[in-house]
Amino acid sequence: MVLLSGGIDSATCLAIAKVDGYHLNALTFHYHQRHAVEIEAAKRVARAAGVARHMVLDLPLGQIGGSALTSDMEVPKDAKLESLGNRIPVTYVPARNTIFLSFAMAWAEVLGAADIFIGVNALDYSGYPDCRPEYIEAFEKTANLGTKKTVEGELMIRIHTPLITLTKAQIIRRGVELGLDYSVTHSCYDPDPAGRACGRCDSCLLRRKGFLEAGVPDPTSYYDSR
Amino acid sequence: MVLLSGGIDSATCLAIAKVDGYHLNALTFHYHQRHAVEIEAAKRVARAAGVARHMVLDLPLGQIGGSALTSDMEVPKDAKLESLGNRIPVTYVPARNTIFLSFAMAWAEVLGAADIFIGVNALDYSGYPDCRPEYIEAFEKTANLGTKKTVEGELMIRIHTPLITLTKAQIIRRGVELGLDYSVTHSCYDPDPAGRACGRCDSCLLRRKGFLEAGVPDPTSYYDSR
Repeated sequence: MVLLSGGIDSATCLAIAKVDGYHLNALTFHYHQRHAVEIEAAKRVARAAGVARHMVLDLPLGQIGGSALTSDMEVPKDAKLESLGNRIPVTYVPARNTIFLSFAMAWAEVLGAADIFIGVNALDYSGYPDCRPEYIEAFEKTANLGTKKTVEGELMIRIHTPLITLTKAQIIRRGVELGLDYSVTHSCYDPDPAGRACGRCDSCLLRRKGFLEAGVPDPTSYYDSR
Repeated sequence: MVLLSGGIDSATCLAIAKVDGYHLNALTFHYHQRHAVEIEAAKRVARAAGVARHMVLDLPLGQIGGSALTSDMEVPKDAKLESLGNRIPVTYVPARNTIFLSFAMAWAEVLGAADIFIGVNALDYSGYPDCRPEYIEAFEKTANLGTKKTVEGELMIRIHTPLITLTKAQIIRRGVELGLDYSVTHSCYDPDPAGRACGRCDSCLLRRKGFLEAGVPDPTSYYDSR
């Protein structure tokens, strides 16, 4: 089971799970993110990879708030690239990965799926706490203590993080090797009504830098790149 | 913050948090449980306790399935009381407490609330794996590694389980001492259209046994008690 947002990281994660021979199921969340257009990207990515099932779940994270991604707070633009990762930005969504992984854990139990893939990475990222290895390990332990099948010994859940030590450029190069078409992915936090990327939010900046450093042409159409 | 289902345990948990002097927020989930009538009970309990805020979140657990509580599977009746807790029953909902606690963790971060109360108990329960102390400890660790405020040292989340070593009778006696009116609570997994309890599902059996052993008159109206 692959957590699939529709961005570069989760699409690459899915491609890695595929080449590693896993039977693919994908899980995507509509959490009232301002860039809900990424769900369409996730559907395109899932279709292209030939996943068996792709579930999209609607979660009321907007009711909880606390993030620029789920409220009217402004999305920061034109950050200095070297400062990304030093401070946790306002696009941080409280407990997002814990919520996402807990649903993955539930569906994994129903399907009898032992392997959950999540495209977190601890380099070239936005400084989110729930992307770090120690967090992932703690969640994995919780999952194995918290379901019927894991406690009864029928299932041992493993959380795979194949991108965790890669830079964005390395991720992109790996995806290109695997034949991934990044033009179907979406990263931008603040797309225009047509779904085009802004080119200036943290997520766009990391994406653009990744393609540049990977030496791969960026297939994204930006409405406001400077 | 108190996770409030509207049953005996969570209502008692709320009463304990109140007498302990906490500022009260309550969190309830509509997860397409067949006994969604418990949400009305949760609202009555929250109102009676005077909670500051009571959030009800809608979660798509029915889409994931795997439980008699969120699907058309039949709810077991007339189980032998002494066998409850020996096997995990079909009313088990995959990863339910992990999902609930992950939303509590998110809202706790937004509110700056350090204390999360959950009415799990490891005695007189239905054998659910996510009610055990080792599970709760693992989740607490995950929570403290997984949010901005906990990682930055602004918040240390503590999961309180004041009922974990109590029997149902002890829980009821504690609630009665605290002036709790259990007639506003709801336990039954299989209520009739009027919201009355069946009297025969595991949850009703534990409730009835609890009142009996506590020597407290059971205020519940059952439509099918034998």
